[in-house]
Amino acid sequence: MKTYKSLDITPLKFENGKLTILDQTLLPIDEVYIEIKTKEDMWDAIYHLKVRGAPAIGVVAAYGLYVEAGRYDGDEIEDFISAVEKAAVYLEGARPTAVNLSWALNRMVSCLKGQECNSVQHAKEVLLLEAVKIHEEDVNACKAMGEYGLSLLKPGIGILTHCNAGTIATSKYGTCLAPIHLGQERDYNFKVFADETRPLLQGARLTAWELDKAGVDVTLICDNMAATVMKNGWIDAVVVGCDRMAANGDGANKIGTSGVAVLAKEFGIPFYMYVPTSTIDMNTSTGDDINIELRDGKEIYQMWYEKPMAPEGIKTFNPAFDVTDHRYITAVITEKGIVYPPYDINLRKIME
Amino acid sequence: MKTYKSLDITPLKFENGKLTILDQTLLPIDEVYIEIKTKEDMWDAIYHLKVRGAPAIGVVAAYGLYVEAGRYDGDEIEDFISAVEKAAVYLEGARPTAVNLSWALNRMVSCLKGQECNSVQHAKEVLLLEAVKIHEEDVNACKAMGEYGLSLLKPGIGILTHCNAGTIATSKYGTCLAPIHLGQERDYNFKVFADETRPLLQGARLTAWELDKAGVDVTLICDNMAATVMKNGWIDAVVVGCDRMAANGDGANKIGTSGVAVLAKEFGIPFYMYVPTSTIDMNTSTGDDINIELRDGKEIYQMWYEKPMAPEGIKTFNPAFDVTDHRYITAVITEKGIVYPPYDINLRKIME
Repeated sequence: MKTYKSLDITPLKFENGKLTILDQTLLPIDEVYIEIKTKEDMWDAIYHLKVRGAPAIGVVAAYGLYVEAGRYDGDEIEDFISAVEKAAVYLEGARPTAVNLSWALNRMVSCLKGQECNSVQHAKEVLLLEAVKIHEEDVNACKAMGEYGLSLLKPGIGILTHCNAGTIATSKYGTCLAPIHLGQERDYNFKVFADETRPLLQGARLTAWELDKAGVDVTLICDNMAATVMKNGWIDAVVVGCDRMAANGDGANKIGTSGVAVLAKEFGIPFYMYVPTSTIDMNTSTGDDINIELRDGKEIYQMWYEKPMAPEGIKTFNPAFDVTDHRYITAVITEKGIVYPPYDINLRKIME
Repeated sequence: MKTYKSLDITPLKFENGKLTILDQTLLPIDEVYIEIKTKEDMWDAIYHLKVRGAPAIGVVAAYGLYVEAGRYDGDEIEDFISAVEKAAVYLEGARPTAVNLSWALNRMVSCLKGQECNSVQHAKEVLLLEAVKIHEEDVNACKAMGEYGLSLLKPGIGILTHCNAGTIATSKYGTCLAPIHLGQERDYNFKVFADETRPLLQGARLTAWELDKAGVDVTLICDNMAATVMKNGWIDAVVVGCDRMAANGDGANKIGTSGVAVLAKEFGIPFYMYVPTSTIDMNTSTGDDINIELRDGKEIYQMWYEKPMAPEGIKTFNPAFDVTDHRYITAVITEKGIVYPPYDINLRKIME
């Protein structure tokens, strides 16, 4: 039996006015924190997945907007607000699918505009406090999701997860990995199977790394092995995160999630999607309305290796996300509680 | 519209008494033929997937056994036969799942023992002729499967394939890619989607390379994108090969195939398995009786790159194959015709 090692991993640090983020593209080989000094640094870090995971992107973007605002050296409050708004629009463009990005940026801007700031300095403080609040709320939301999620999982069971909705995808604990971390603290001894999650291997590089570091029994598999571990009877539950959930319960998450959901249904395994309410977009009616980001095919055939993994320049299709139809989702775990179908009615209730 | 380029790719050559094989682990970067001089060379080439694909393994192993036999320099016929038998047993151990390997080796040994050879030289000739016969039969079988398969596919449709059951997995044309090559010659303009097929990327390195080289419109995707291209309505048929089919129609093929089959069923897409009768093992009653080869986890987290893709030494599960339940298979395409369910009855008929 492996013992739990307390989580000393954090995807971001804000200390002495400096924002640093763990460059997740270098994991699991190097653990390097890089400083974010400008909105361009922030955009680049989000676009290139140095920070990833919907909640973490939201929290980091909030701090990032504050850091950019800190560079403003005028004293015209209207001009300052306008500059912050422009920076928010710019940052929002870095990843169109993750709703938390626009959610956090909008919240920062709204908070700023909603207060009577008598100076630019005051306005900057307002932004800082709001970023800290978003951060703290995320930690608490993850812990709450962990507790709700854990109530659905029995000790000793096998759990499959896809991509990384773990501690480094959030401020702490993660969304769908939160019950695994909490369960590990309580000797639940889950047997976790982590899909490697091509093309960028977030499961291999991040989930396997994070869970192994926390002492969890984790087995890495290729995405195409999910059907086999399910058929072998090794999986009792599937837990995944979510990047944007529509009002009807359709959930966009890392590419491959929808296929895992179909398999889970076929093998009679419950499929749980962990969705902080900040990720639920009641203005999007169904999954068909979710804009799916298409990324460079080089991620498939070249990655960060020099050696091509396929013929140079081969045609590819590389969507970053897919939409899991609400019919395949057994329950949606939010920080406010567990939501069951019918989602069109019950998501509305929890969002009120 | 891309025009068809005639297939100048061959996985093996037997010329002037020399057996050379295309080292498929070096594709798509280098096209290198290596010589097989001993049974150890042969074992290594099969084990390390320098030659892969059930039919190609069978053909190459037959020639490989002849090459090894050629090294025998005594003149005791009984001793010669015993040496050949031992070499066959040794070679059979290189890949336990592919039935064609044992099928071809058994056929070589049976042929040898079934003839009254009056000298070792004569016995060697018997082995050579049998290897050539196995080779020619495979070319004809692939062409026949291509024609039968093509009768199920309409021009212009989208086709998904997994792994590589193509021209380099056989002597020529391939099994499940045979109708695509034949269709391309006849301006069918299929739109083919190739699953990259982790961990060893046979889809990316071999199928994408082979089809692109033949002028076919091919798009490379990661395995976990299959559900998305199906949901998008881009796939009208799935074609896959088979490494061993049980008497009830359960078919072992490259890991990931069974998951694709479940998805195809969910999206109402026909799923065709291409199975030369040499791959049908009537002595195996169901898929549960098929021995699935487990391979080194390094294939998942290290591959042939120096840079680890996951934490060093992480626990993995790396089955090379999975079994697709016969319930998911719309039709089995053999060189003798198309077999429909109920497979337990209809496979028996075609094998008679």
